Amino acid sequence: MQQQPERPAPPGEPISTERVSEVLAAVREGDRERLISLLEPLHEADIADLLEQIDPDERRDLVELWGNNFAGDVLSELEEPVQAEVVAQLPSDQLTKVVRELESDDVVDLVEDLEPEQQQAILAGLDEAERVVVEHSLSYPENSAGRLMQREIVIVPAHWNVGQAIDFLRNSTNLPDQFYHLLLTDPKAALVGMVALGRLMSSLREVRLLDILDADCRSIGADETQQDVAYAFNQYHLISAPVIDSGGRIVGVITIDDAMTVLDEEAEEDIMRLAGVGDESLSARVTETARQRFPWLIVNLVTAIIASLVIDQFTETIEMLVALAVLMPIVASMGGNAGTQSLTVAVRALATRDLTGSNTSRVIRREALVGIVNGILFALIAGIVGLVWFGTPLLGFVMGMAMIITMIAAALAGILIPIGFNRIRIDPALASGVFVTTVTDVVGFLAFLGLAALILL
Amino acid sequence: MQQQPERPAPPGEPISTERVSEVLAAVREGDRERLISLLEPLHEADIADLLEQIDPDERRDLVELWGNNFAGDVLSELEEPVQAEVVAQLPSDQLTKVVRELESDDVVDLVEDLEPEQQQAILAGLDEAERVVVEHSLSYPENSAGRLMQREIVIVPAHWNVGQAIDFLRNSTNLPDQFYHLLLTDPKAALVGMVALGRLMSSLREVRLLDILDADCRSIGADETQQDVAYAFNQYHLISAPVIDSGGRIVGVITIDDAMTVLDEEAEEDIMRLAGVGDESLSARVTETARQRFPWLIVNLVTAIIASLVIDQFTETIEMLVALAVLMPIVASMGGNAGTQSLTVAVRALATRDLTGSNTSRVIRREALVGIVNGILFALIAGIVGLVWFGTPLLGFVMGMAMIITMIAAALAGILIPIGFNRIRIDPALASGVFVTTVTDVVGFLAFLGLAALILL
Repeated sequence: MQQQPERPAPPGEPISTERVSEVLAAVREGDRERLISLLEPLHEADIADLLEQIDPDERRDLVELWGNNFAGDVLSELEEPVQAEVVAQLPSDQLTKVVRELESDDVVDLVEDLEPEQQQAILAGLDEAERVVVEHSLSYPENSAGRLMQREIVIVPAHWNVGQAIDFLRNSTNLPDQFYHLLLTDPKAALVGMVALGRLMSSLREVRLLDILDADCRSIGADETQQDVAYAFNQYHLISAPVIDSGGRIVGVITIDDAMTVLDEEAEEDIMRLAGVGDESLSARVTETARQRFPWLIVNLVTAIIASLVIDQFTETIEMLVALAVLMPIVASMGGNAGTQSLTVAVRALATRDLTGSNTSRVIRREALVGIVNGILFALIAGIVGLVWFGTPLLGFVMGMAMIITMIAAALAGILIPIGFNRIRIDPALASGVFVTTVTDVVGFLAFLGLAALILL
Repeated sequence: MQQQPERPAPPGEPISTERVSEVLAAVREGDRERLISLLEPLHEADIADLLEQIDPDERRDLVELWGNNFAGDVLSELEEPVQAEVVAQLPSDQLTKVVRELESDDVVDLVEDLEPEQQQAILAGLDEAERVVVEHSLSYPENSAGRLMQREIVIVPAHWNVGQAIDFLRNSTNLPDQFYHLLLTDPKAALVGMVALGRLMSSLREVRLLDILDADCRSIGADETQQDVAYAFNQYHLISAPVIDSGGRIVGVITIDDAMTVLDEEAEEDIMRLAGVGDESLSARVTETARQRFPWLIVNLVTAIIASLVIDQFTETIEMLVALAVLMPIVASMGGNAGTQSLTVAVRALATRDLTGSNTSRVIRREALVGIVNGILFALIAGIVGLVWFGTPLLGFVMGMAMIITMIAAALAGILIPIGFNRIRIDPALASGVFVTTVTDVVGFLAFLGLAALILL
């Protein structure tokens, strides 16, 4: 029977709300056959999404009812907290069965996040050969290329010609499910290059493999970070890349789909960290989420208190002219926003490596100039606001001057702070926001209230 | 000569600062041969990065000196503003030569962002056949799958067996440079499925292609958005996917490297929009950058003034107790941060489609509860701060109550506003931040000053 390929589901609703309701109804009624027939046509990734979206209790019931039909691929598609939950729930014989279905890199991905106990249970269930492969991958550092790579590779001698390679492939019985390149090695087993399957198929039998090498073969060290791997794939449009150990031997291959996942996670991490949210998932419980967001809020409380200490120095000034209390948040808020703009551009440029040693000083200069330009514009606007609102020209002048000072400080803090953190190898996305806000708040309040004290009173 | 494949460059410094200096020195001295020998070993993507990182004047000189050696692939790697600049600078005969080197999807990518005049100049330089292909792609909407797809595809009849397919490939003279799948069609030219090259190579000659179809073939409509395409590739781990037109005919194929680029751009856009920065690039000029950031700052000024109008209602209260002016920014700032946390999680979950119709109400409930939990915690802390700092128990009480109200409002605004924008099809990343901040500022000042007026005076 030939099956018509499915179109990807429309945007926003990969699994319809109705389908989820039907599944939950089947679970409530304990109707196993109906559950299986509802889940069967879905892609594992969609089933994983469904499991993440429902309540923990419903999830437990569903997994239990689904029972032996639980597919290994669903497990590797689940996000961490839910994955650990399901692993803990599955009976050990079923877990063993499920894990045996997975490819080695998926097993590594699954096992590395689990508690040692769960890890041991899973490893014990693997074949000897498979276990050695998984344990070897786990011997590489977390978030390294060694953890990401697949161990199934196709290697041929570099001196072969196209005909020999094709004959070899045609006679092999244990080729990997998916592969896109042949890896070429010299007699000492060192990597020479790789040949794309498509190129191989379109070349004459007598052509030497060395003459149709991929122009963009880049080998990746097993110890390199996954971040570097994702960067290389994205920058050089790689489809797959061989991984070599410190001795130069080929130990595996990384394919672009895994690199894409890493790239996606890195961007996610940057967004979340900039907002002061950890590796948060929607399926986490309330207490867990509150706990994860708490530290950032505490840090923010400290910086807010520092800003308030600045205001506290000017209580007499405010008592004499209460309009200052009305206007001062405007200056601080504008500074905070301008700072966030610079900061975000800087953090992103550092992540994508567009901000390097060769353009740092130019970018800093540019940010300062942008701060001056927008500072002057908003000084004029704010000055007019201050004047019109309270009818005091000098108040408008103070407002404008404070605005210009704050906007320039914001621009400089927004670029210098992330660059500084990057230099000392602290993730700029994580730590910069608080410092930038502190600078803009302190400078904003100090400039506005200080100038007011000097000029108006 | 066999070449040793290069290792990807180390993190952070894809092209060393020294290399850039050497290149710039060669440009200043007008030493063309040295420039060519310096650039020759670099990947096009790295040369493009180099061009983006240097000053516009240096860039012009470099492109001029490089002259005829300017590679087409460098042009397609450049980001938009720089690309247009270089296109405008290249003499038309050289531009024609450069563009002829590119694949059709790269030409489309290059041409679509250019001014109509530059567009015409480039299209006129193409072969008739190539021009038809490019113009056909351009007939699809911007940011659609039709613009992203490659036109070079390999199609075979679905009723063939492995042997027939291999013989066909071996005898073809015009296969694309890169392809990973055979597309299978029925006699009416409708897509039946696809077969991975690796799977083909590892199957016996008599096996029918229909029996080794890729389990995960998903066809993509030419009108679908690139965002949907990137989602499908990431979600279903696709390597390539056929593109079909509204009549069901195969018009091209999209490969994962293009989808990866889109995914990267989407994440970038979300980060930038959340911070109120447009499609900004580091190579843009100061005035352009200032102009791009201005609108968001204006909007923020308006929201800041709205918050100040709230404060303005309480000037008498503040005059009687100036400590209120000192403490009020703390409440607003905490609300702003808590709101940003909820907002970012919501925006990201909408983008990755983890927030759907089936879990919306659960997620809203969760955010409200997180707001209550952290609200209570920070109410206690803030209450103590207010008490200790100013020695007034009632002030501490007001501070705590205001904090709880603001944190809950922040949590709800942070989730409801992006969901609302998403419903009416406005990008939540773009518009939500301002509204959330307005809510948290207004609620923060109103709760704190209002309670103070009621309780303290």
